[in-house]
Amino acid sequence: MIVTIVSVHVKKEHLEDFIQASIENHHNSLKEPGNLRFDILQNAENPQLFTLYEAYISKEAAAVHKETGHYKKWRDTVSEWMVEPRKGVLHNIIAPLF
Amino acid sequence: MIVTIVSVHVKKEHLEDFIQASIENHHNSLKEPGNLRFDILQNAENPQLFTLYEAYISKEAAAVHKETGHYKKWRDTVSEWMVEPRKGVLHNIIAPLF
Repeated sequence: MIVTIVSVHVKKEHLEDFIQASIENHHNSLKEPGNLRFDILQNAENPQLFTLYEAYISKEAAAVHKETGHYKKWRDTVSEWMVEPRKGVLHNIIAPLF
Repeated sequence: MIVTIVSVHVKKEHLEDFIQASIENHHNSLKEPGNLRFDILQNAENPQLFTLYEAYISKEAAAVHKETGHYKKWRDTVSEWMVEPRKGVLHNIIAPLF
């Protein structure tokens, strides 16, 4: 199992747009057979900073996610709303054991 | 619901010690009535970098966590094993809705 932690810095004027587009991506991503979780978090001190927590059963399943229509739609929709390019960091899960 | 994302940089010679102490903390934290999740992640590129994902039903529940014996034991046990002080960043959960 792996988790990609994605850090996103969103322009002030697009916070609600980003949240809505990401919730749609969240719901569709949960339907992928290889998805374990897709959490959307907002920094409590700075509402422009978001963290996406995307857990998959394998690297392969995470790669399949990037080929889905809902991912590509989200990627293309939100790209103009970011202050800087988002950063994803791959992690292995120590606990919990699924 | 809130999530504290804690970044930890662990000394090479204490990776296994840190993992074991954190798994014990994970198991005890899951028993807290206010805990939603307590995930331990290890950076796939740099095994010295860990992320703890601690979800609680409220800020108050997260504060209660810091008063527990298992938290204090973990805190005191691992403090010498860190390259630099850990950093926790508070987040609000946008999705999923619990």
